[in-house]
Amino acid sequence: MNVKLILKLLGRVELLIAGSMLLPLGVSLLYGESPLPFLTSIAVLLCTCLPLSLMRTGSGFFLRDGFAAVGLIWLLVSVAGALPFYFSGEFSSFTDCLFESASGFTTTGATILADIEACSKGILFWRSLTHWLGGMGVLVLATAIVPSLGIRSHYLTQAESPGPVFSKLVPKQAQTSKILYSIYCVLTLTEVLCLKLAGMPLYDSFIHAFSSAGTGGFSNRNASVGAYGSVAIDLIITVFILLFSLNFAVYFLLLTRKWREALSSDELRFFLLVVTGATILIAIDIAPLYTSIWESLRYSVFQVASIISTTGFATADFVLWPHFSQTILVLLMFCGACAGSTGGGIKCSRVLILLRSIRREIHRVIHPRSVEVVKLDGKVVEEDTLRSISVFVGSYLFIILAATLIISLDDFPFSVSFSSALTCISNVGPGLELVGPTGNFSAFSHLSKIVMSLCMIIGRLEIFPILVLFSRQAWRHT
Amino acid sequence: MNVKLILKLLGRVELLIAGSMLLPLGVSLLYGESPLPFLTSIAVLLCTCLPLSLMRTGSGFFLRDGFAAVGLIWLLVSVAGALPFYFSGEFSSFTDCLFESASGFTTTGATILADIEACSKGILFWRSLTHWLGGMGVLVLATAIVPSLGIRSHYLTQAESPGPVFSKLVPKQAQTSKILYSIYCVLTLTEVLCLKLAGMPLYDSFIHAFSSAGTGGFSNRNASVGAYGSVAIDLIITVFILLFSLNFAVYFLLLTRKWREALSSDELRFFLLVVTGATILIAIDIAPLYTSIWESLRYSVFQVASIISTTGFATADFVLWPHFSQTILVLLMFCGACAGSTGGGIKCSRVLILLRSIRREIHRVIHPRSVEVVKLDGKVVEEDTLRSISVFVGSYLFIILAATLIISLDDFPFSVSFSSALTCISNVGPGLELVGPTGNFSAFSHLSKIVMSLCMIIGRLEIFPILVLFSRQAWRHT
Repeated sequence: MNVKLILKLLGRVELLIAGSMLLPLGVSLLYGESPLPFLTSIAVLLCTCLPLSLMRTGSGFFLRDGFAAVGLIWLLVSVAGALPFYFSGEFSSFTDCLFESASGFTTTGATILADIEACSKGILFWRSLTHWLGGMGVLVLATAIVPSLGIRSHYLTQAESPGPVFSKLVPKQAQTSKILYSIYCVLTLTEVLCLKLAGMPLYDSFIHAFSSAGTGGFSNRNASVGAYGSVAIDLIITVFILLFSLNFAVYFLLLTRKWREALSSDELRFFLLVVTGATILIAIDIAPLYTSIWESLRYSVFQVASIISTTGFATADFVLWPHFSQTILVLLMFCGACAGSTGGGIKCSRVLILLRSIRREIHRVIHPRSVEVVKLDGKVVEEDTLRSISVFVGSYLFIILAATLIISLDDFPFSVSFSSALTCISNVGPGLELVGPTGNFSAFSHLSKIVMSLCMIIGRLEIFPILVLFSRQAWRHT
Repeated sequence: MNVKLILKLLGRVELLIAGSMLLPLGVSLLYGESPLPFLTSIAVLLCTCLPLSLMRTGSGFFLRDGFAAVGLIWLLVSVAGALPFYFSGEFSSFTDCLFESASGFTTTGATILADIEACSKGILFWRSLTHWLGGMGVLVLATAIVPSLGIRSHYLTQAESPGPVFSKLVPKQAQTSKILYSIYCVLTLTEVLCLKLAGMPLYDSFIHAFSSAGTGGFSNRNASVGAYGSVAIDLIITVFILLFSLNFAVYFLLLTRKWREALSSDELRFFLLVVTGATILIAIDIAPLYTSIWESLRYSVFQVASIISTTGFATADFVLWPHFSQTILVLLMFCGACAGSTGGGIKCSRVLILLRSIRREIHRVIHPRSVEVVKLDGKVVEEDTLRSISVFVGSYLFIILAATLIISLDDFPFSVSFSSALTCISNVGPGLELVGPTGNFSAFSHLSKIVMSLCMIIGRLEIFPILVLFSRQAWRHT
């Protein structure tokens, strides 16, 4: 393992985080709040990370270094992001700050704040900005704007990018990262504009656009998006969180006028099918609670989009809905968004490929001698990819169950500990009962909060970069 | 598909079921109860199945026929088993009878009866006998005692036997089946004897021995094994359900004096490790509820053995235990017993192989060019087996979630619908809250009960025989 190079990388990324704190610093000054939390954090990061980033290092950077680097960087980025929360004095412990920061960067959106509106504007701005930074990935950002690190940077983005197969849009990784971030910025600013036009204050528009873009879910209002009670705002956010749940390669294909290729994706169709199906089922199920089918459709489509995109905004308290609707939402938490998007979960393409593997397994019983392949978008999915997808889903289940076990030490009912573990690893945000849309995670013990923070990072990085960190073999000198 | 041969087989197995009803018929007569429920059932089965069993059929019997036959036979054996319940008039609907019968044959042990002790002796005897018949398998029984069907009978036992790899003890399937049933009978009778010596009435001893042998869980007492309040009985049952959770190949190896081979199984060690670990953790967790650590150990080891063996007996209402202990029990429900035993669940060997696949996946990141194999008992597990295990676990999860969704239409909390689906597919018996050890499944709708019955059969046959039945391809004439 090239530890020195990993530390140097870590230093540079942390400086990038320090740099991005200038934005909420500006917001603080604008609203006449104390800039100290941010100034102190920036100072701490400069002192600790500047030396690291200037270190002399050897060459030699392999896939495992990429995985370990990404795992380590995400753990320490969460710590760095917690500093302003800590110095603001608005949180009750450092564990809480860490939880909030991990929840931010991993775009989970679970909060330990009971009264969000009591926080200062700068802190809430930083809270949502972490969603935006984490959504597309801090390392994708680093490869896009930091001058060449002299390493094979696709190992980094490969470990950070969500989805079963990693593909670059253009041969050069730095170029790919730039294109991705450009699309990301344009879409985010468009959403800010739309929200402003729909009557949302500009500050709130930025907050909600950042949270939508990262499919995070932090709001600056206690009642989340429901606080505005506006059909237009609901609709705009629904559309944008769905847009941010799609594979960004689709936008690149659209930009390069490859219309047919962009729209013929199996994953896209599966995603839209699931969204439509879930929306209709929930709308029928909750119809008795609302005055018209249109109203129930409005709440249903928003919640379905919010959960499958793993954003976690709420316009209604779905914990009060019938349990059938709640169960559909739990299933959507497992499924998650499309690969290559800013969303979490197992990802639609993996679910689709797994379903096709099951169909193939049945066919093998019927025709034992047939050689059948699993296809996606008309292309054969390699057996190696199939294997790693199955192992991924198995690990996903193991980690959810293990986390549920540890969280259950707090003696909350099974549905609370299970849905907390699931919502954290899938980066959704709200869970069931106690941790529903109007609840929060403050009641858990420090141990549970740390386990949940770890789950969020494991989920965001799709498990293996963190597991590699815990493997003895990875640290052995070779 | 060789439909005629499948129907002929079905006829013969149903006649075997009719024959086995002579036992509870005798019990009814012994206790002066009406033999009518059994006489009517036997008459119905004779009229419908005798013609089938004498049908002239073509040859040609392949793996898919084996799978489809096993799937179909298990569905209809459950219907046949429901007849005595139905004719007894002690159940409120045919759905309830079907649920109880499916729960019996699949050795689940979930019941819709609120007051078990109100039922007649003959019916309760039949109820537990279905556990015994289903435990080792009705088709294993058929191949053991019915004269040659002129087919490759290992296709049948392969589809019915639990575990990732099918292995025969001796080259001839009929011989293997005979050996398995002999071990099964000897162990069962030994348990009857032990229970009788420990002070349990003879009738109760048979009931509990049948239920232990099949790792089912039906008792003739409302308070299950807890009703006897005897340490000796608890201990005897604990030992026997653990013995019945082991791969029966171990006993064959012991009989043929291959001691080392018998005891060096990785699965056996993993199973014992999990049992010990879970027992200690729960004993510590529930210690404050009991007067001494010995008492908490007694309840803990019984419940752990009962759940991991997927029996489902109870000596304490674990729904009242801390949620940490309950969560451990839920994890054990997923895991289940050893392959080749009478227990359900995913099976220890599959869990172990999956864990090793995850470890290999991590090593592949660290050393991308290494060719590492997954081993069990020192032998390489073929990639094909690995693939089918992963797909199996994926399907397991899908089916649990789909069943949870349908059951949630009854509007019980998530923990109830989820644990019901899990306990049914893993053939355990009790779930959480409403469906805990002192609860029952009567409150569910007909739809939920049918879905749960189907889940039990899907779980008992390890998914694919039932999925094959629902595949269009399987029915296409080739």
